[in-house]
Amino acid sequence: MSPSLYDDPKFFNGYAQLGRSKHGLADAPEWPAVAEVLPSLKDAEVLDLGCGYGWFCREARKRGAKRVLGIDVSQKMLDRASEMTRDDAIQYEQGDLEEVVLEQDAYDLIYCSLVLHYIVDFAKLAEKIQSALKPGGYFNFTIEHPLYTAPKGSHWISVDEEHKIWPLDDYLLEGERRTNWIVEGVVKQHRALATYVNTLVEAGLGVRKLVEWWPKPEQVEAMPFLIASFTRPVRSSA
Amino acid sequence: MSPSLYDDPKFFNGYAQLGRSKHGLADAPEWPAVAEVLPSLKDAEVLDLGCGYGWFCREARKRGAKRVLGIDVSQKMLDRASEMTRDDAIQYEQGDLEEVVLEQDAYDLIYCSLVLHYIVDFAKLAEKIQSALKPGGYFNFTIEHPLYTAPKGSHWISVDEEHKIWPLDDYLLEGERRTNWIVEGVVKQHRALATYVNTLVEAGLGVRKLVEWWPKPEQVEAMPFLIASFTRPVRSSA
Repeated sequence: MSPSLYDDPKFFNGYAQLGRSKHGLADAPEWPAVAEVLPSLKDAEVLDLGCGYGWFCREARKRGAKRVLGIDVSQKMLDRASEMTRDDAIQYEQGDLEEVVLEQDAYDLIYCSLVLHYIVDFAKLAEKIQSALKPGGYFNFTIEHPLYTAPKGSHWISVDEEHKIWPLDDYLLEGERRTNWIVEGVVKQHRALATYVNTLVEAGLGVRKLVEWWPKPEQVEAMPFLIASFTRPVRSSA
Repeated sequence: MSPSLYDDPKFFNGYAQLGRSKHGLADAPEWPAVAEVLPSLKDAEVLDLGCGYGWFCREARKRGAKRVLGIDVSQKMLDRASEMTRDDAIQYEQGDLEEVVLEQDAYDLIYCSLVLHYIVDFAKLAEKIQSALKPGGYFNFTIEHPLYTAPKGSHWISVDEEHKIWPLDDYLLEGERRTNWIVEGVVKQHRALATYVNTLVEAGLGVRKLVEWWPKPEQVEAMPFLIASFTRPVRSSA
């Protein structure tokens, strides 16, 4: 991920306005589904890769984690995370996930929310994650679903007033995608779902559960736009 | 799968005209990718669920399998398979995969090509497969890719003369799909990719490799229509 993106004031300020930035995990529609598959964190050593404002780091402590390390590429994000944190068991460190060095055999849970679709060398990071986990440890990650990142122009097509379809394109053509999100030209890395699974398996990580996330009925009631997730999932996690 | 489909003479005769029916595995575009992930079959006990004309049963013997059992719902398919087979180590048995009883702890490889998207109760079958495999055994299957089975009306949309997109719809709405293939109203069961993975994991089968199949360059040269697979994969296997 480009270190400069979160250091761009326009992006940083726009990002700060998102519900999940202001209100944390409760405002991330996929959070209940992620929480369902989290292991017990009682006395756990936790690493959050791409921790942003540190919402998950603080949540992990509420869930009983002994020690939490949050790493993020953006010092501005980390400064904000530190302001929001009063807890000596949480540490923040600046680091680029493409080049990061992780402590070996150290963590019960490595968490990584909506970051991997920015990473160019996922295989390298997966190997580091495998080495950094204790035996039996968990790697829990969320990505933008490959169905969402695949098409180079990603806009719904209306079939009629009630019915939209998702114009899927280039699903198996992996690589760079440029998209406009808060600012223009944000660079993402598109990979097929199988590539995520196989890269983890090749790194020695078994798949416990793969989630193609969809909203719960009460979420659709609160946020009707989420109904579109049934046509084309927007998040995937494992 | 409806037992009556292959017993419908119109379907049976239409199916008999497909390249893969007449010429076997060499005419199935996904076969090279499947062959790449097959384990060694030397002295293996092999079960082929939905064996059709028995092409894979005979291939397994060429690869050194000790004994092969092919099961299919259609007696007509099995009669044809028997006509094409001169090998006492290959047995054919009529059976509906929804209700089939499998020998326990008996097989090194269970193979299942393009059948699971007809099965209503995949969880039940996955448990039987897990019990029927010897420890360390392989389950190798191919399905129509969920991106292909998801939309209720599945036709490419032309954006311009050179460029088509796949109108993805209802990906997370699992269940019955009716499609016209050789005859009208063929019933398939659509499931998200994650459901296949999770059903296998819950049955006790780990994922070694997930393949979202795409054609090799020489296949695209021979069959130019296959280029569309890059936009939307047509097969998935694991």
